[in-house]
Amino acid sequence: MKDRTLILDCKNEIGKQVNIYGFVQVRRDHGKIQFLDVSDRTGIMQVVLGGGKGTDIRAQDVVKILGQVNKRPEHLVNKNIPTGEIEIYSEEFEVLSKAEELPFDMGGKDLNLQLPTLLDFRPLTLRHPKVKQIFKVQEAIIDGFRRTCQSLGCTEIVVPTIAASSTEGGAEVFKLDYFGHKAFMTQSPQLYKQMLIPVFERVYTISHAYRAEPSVTTRHLTEVTQMDLEFGFCEFPELLDLLEKVATDTLKYAEDQNEKALKEFGIEKIAFGSPRGEAGSIPRLTLREAQELILKEFGRDNRKEKDLTPQDELDLCKWALEKHNSDFVTVTHFPTKAKPFYTKPDPKDPEYSLSYDLLFRGVEVLSGSQRINDYKQLVESIKLRGMDPKEFELYLMAFKFGMPLEGGFSFGLERLTMHMLNLANVREASLFPRDMERVDIRLNKSS
Amino acid sequence: MKDRTLILDCKNEIGKQVNIYGFVQVRRDHGKIQFLDVSDRTGIMQVVLGGGKGTDIRAQDVVKILGQVNKRPEHLVNKNIPTGEIEIYSEEFEVLSKAEELPFDMGGKDLNLQLPTLLDFRPLTLRHPKVKQIFKVQEAIIDGFRRTCQSLGCTEIVVPTIAASSTEGGAEVFKLDYFGHKAFMTQSPQLYKQMLIPVFERVYTISHAYRAEPSVTTRHLTEVTQMDLEFGFCEFPELLDLLEKVATDTLKYAEDQNEKALKEFGIEKIAFGSPRGEAGSIPRLTLREAQELILKEFGRDNRKEKDLTPQDELDLCKWALEKHNSDFVTVTHFPTKAKPFYTKPDPKDPEYSLSYDLLFRGVEVLSGSQRINDYKQLVESIKLRGMDPKEFELYLMAFKFGMPLEGGFSFGLERLTMHMLNLANVREASLFPRDMERVDIRLNKSS
Repeated sequence: MKDRTLILDCKNEIGKQVNIYGFVQVRRDHGKIQFLDVSDRTGIMQVVLGGGKGTDIRAQDVVKILGQVNKRPEHLVNKNIPTGEIEIYSEEFEVLSKAEELPFDMGGKDLNLQLPTLLDFRPLTLRHPKVKQIFKVQEAIIDGFRRTCQSLGCTEIVVPTIAASSTEGGAEVFKLDYFGHKAFMTQSPQLYKQMLIPVFERVYTISHAYRAEPSVTTRHLTEVTQMDLEFGFCEFPELLDLLEKVATDTLKYAEDQNEKALKEFGIEKIAFGSPRGEAGSIPRLTLREAQELILKEFGRDNRKEKDLTPQDELDLCKWALEKHNSDFVTVTHFPTKAKPFYTKPDPKDPEYSLSYDLLFRGVEVLSGSQRINDYKQLVESIKLRGMDPKEFELYLMAFKFGMPLEGGFSFGLERLTMHMLNLANVREASLFPRDMERVDIRLNKSS
Repeated sequence: MKDRTLILDCKNEIGKQVNIYGFVQVRRDHGKIQFLDVSDRTGIMQVVLGGGKGTDIRAQDVVKILGQVNKRPEHLVNKNIPTGEIEIYSEEFEVLSKAEELPFDMGGKDLNLQLPTLLDFRPLTLRHPKVKQIFKVQEAIIDGFRRTCQSLGCTEIVVPTIAASSTEGGAEVFKLDYFGHKAFMTQSPQLYKQMLIPVFERVYTISHAYRAEPSVTTRHLTEVTQMDLEFGFCEFPELLDLLEKVATDTLKYAEDQNEKALKEFGIEKIAFGSPRGEAGSIPRLTLREAQELILKEFGRDNRKEKDLTPQDELDLCKWALEKHNSDFVTVTHFPTKAKPFYTKPDPKDPEYSLSYDLLFRGVEVLSGSQRINDYKQLVESIKLRGMDPKEFELYLMAFKFGMPLEGGFSFGLERLTMHMLNLANVREASLFPRDMERVDIRLNKSS
C-alpha cells in the first residue's frame, strides 16, 4: 500500500495527514463520539470517529483510515504504549474487509475461554493480544537458541522426518504408506545429528518430531518442535557446562526481548544462579544425590525409584532457588536401562549412565547424554534392547569410519514456552496443536 | 576436552606445545617422514610424523596429537588456507577412534562417485570437504533468508505438517494412520501462513513439505525444505518488489559468506541487475510478454502454452543477463486455471492471475501470488476446482473475520542450493535425500 503510514511511524507525523491500515481491535462509544483501537504490525492507534460515521464498525474489521495525527490531551495520554501520546481524527474511513459478528468478546485484557473453544476458533483467538504474545515469546526462544548455537560454532543442519525404521525403537510412531513401503515419522533428529558430528563437529537443528502416544494429558502433543544440539570432542563435564549455557542464554534472550509481556503474564524474573553464566552457578546432582536430598530436606524416601517423580522435580527446584538462587537444577546419572540405546553407561558404574536432565521451575525441559561412540559397544547396546542392528545400517556406518567422543541434548520448544509463561496446557503454546482428538478440527469417530 | 587447542587457534601458539583433536583427512608418505592433514571444525593442520610412528594411520581416524607448533619453511607455505604457514611436529600420538578401510579414495579435490554410491555411503561421503561445502552454502542461504525476513518485520512462525485434509487438493499426498483417522503430510505451509496474516501481518517459516509424486527425476524429492513468506496489506507491485528483494538479499548473503567455495565449484558471481536491489533492476514480464519475446528473440512460437517450457526459462535468463545484467527474471500473470484455488485472478482479465515465478539462471526457484482475500470468492474458487469447502473449515474461518489484501511466495531450499552450485541432481543438495526409491537405504520391493 503505497499511501500507507505504519502506526508506529505516526509519532513522527504529528499535525500531518496520514493513511493507516489495520484491524479494529476495540470500539468504544462515548455519546456522539466513537473511539476505535486500530492495530497493525507496529502498534496500536486510537482513532476518533466524529458524527456517527462508524456505526456498524466492529472488532476485526480491516480498515483504512485517512486523518490527521494529533497529540492527545494531557489527561488522556497512555504511557504504557509507544503511541499513547497521539491519536488520529478520522476524515475518511473505509472498511476493506468486513468481519462477521464475533462468537465471543475479544476486547478484554484476557481471553477467558475454555480450551476447546480456544482451539475451535484458532484463526480468531490467535488474534487476541495476549494469545499472540505467547508466540512472540516463542519466536524469541527460537531466536535466542539459534544465536547461542551460532556463538558456539555449531552448523545448522536440515534433517529428514521420514525414516525407514523407527528411530529409537519405540512402538509409538506414526506409520506412513511410502509408495507401498513402510515408513515412519521420526521421533527425533537424534540419529541424523549424530551422523553429522564427523562432518561439522558441532551441529544444531530445529525440527519437528512425531509421537503417536495415545494419551491425552496437558503435556502431550503428537507433533512437537525440538531444538537439538550435538557436540563432538566433548567430555561429560563440558557437556554439562554447554547445556547450562545454552539453556540460560536462550531463556535470558527470550526474557530480555519480552519484559513487558512477561509482566503481563505475571511471570517473575528468571533466577539464573550466581554468578550467572559461570559454570557451577547451577546446582548439579546425580539422581542418587537428588534422592538423598529429597529424603533429607523433604522427608520422602524415593531412593529406589528409577527416575524423579513430578513432586521431586518441584521440590528440587524449590531447594535450588532457596539455596542457589537458581530456577535450574541439573540432574545426572539416570539408570542405563531406562535410557535409549545410544546413551553411554558410566564406565565407573555402568548401571548408571552419563545422562542428564535440566529442570526449570519444577519440570524437566531438556535431556540428553554422552553417547556411545564405539561401534562394537553400540551394536551390543542395540541388541541388548531387542532391536536389530540391520535396522540401523546407515547410522552405524558413521561409527565404522571414525567417531569422536560426543554428546548432546534437546529442548521441547512448546514445553519450554509453556513453562516460561506458566501456561496450564501445552496446547496453548502451539499455534495449531495436534493431539489424539484434534487436527485443527475435532476428529470424530466416524471419519 | 580441556587440554584441546583448536586448529585455527594454533596460529597464536607458534613455538608452543599444544594438543589438537581431529580427523585425519589425508596421509602422505615421503620416505621416512609422514605427513597428515588433520581437521577440526575450525581448520586443517599439517602434522609431521617422525620415525614411522603412524604407519597404520588412515583417513577418517580420529586422533589426538601432542606437539609443537612450528612455522613452515618459506617454500612450503600454503597461502590458500589460514593455517598454511604453520605445522605441528608430533611428539605424542593417539588414535581415539579407528576408521575401517575406506571403500573409495576420499583424498582428491573432488569426490568422483556415481550418485548411488554417494548416497549409499552418505555418513562417509558427507565428510568430503567439497560435499560438506554444499551444506555450508545451504546454511548460509537459510541464514540469509532469515536475516532478510527479520529486516522486513516478519514474525517467525512454527506451523504443523500433519493435516486433516490435503492442503492444496492434490492427489499426491502421503497418508498417515492417525489413531484410526485419516491424516496427511502437508504439501506446503500455505494455508497456515495465510491464517496468521491477521495475527502478525508479515510472517515467515522454514518448514518441511511432502510430495508423494511417483516420479524419479533429477529435480524431485519427496521431502523438501520450503522457505515461505506471507505479507498482509500488500498490493501486487509491492509483492514483486518484496520477492525480488528477498531473493537477491538471500543469495547475496550466501554468496558473500562462501566466496572461496563458490570459486571451487567454478561458479560465477551472481548478476543482480543494476542498480542492485533497486526496484526495476530485474526485468519483469507477463507470461504473454515473455512468450512474445521468445518468438521475437529466439524464433519459437509458444504463445499458446499455459506455462514456460524449460527452454523458454533458459532463453529468458540468457536474454536478461545480456540486456539487463541480471541472472533473474520475474514472470507474472499465469493462467488462473493452472494455479491453486487461493490465487487471485487479475480483476482486469480474470483468465490470468496475479501470480509470479522468479527465474534464476534458467530455472524457476520461487513462486507465489496475490491471494483471494474475500471469503465468498474463496469459497467459489474452492468449489470451482471440485473441492469441498467443508474440508477447509478452519482456513476459511480466518477469512470470515477480516482479512486484508495479502500475498506471498516460497522457495525450495534444496533446488535453490542445487542451482546456486550448479549441481547435476537435487539429491546432492540434501543431507539425507528421500525419493521414491530411497529412504537412507535403497528400498527394495520385498520390504
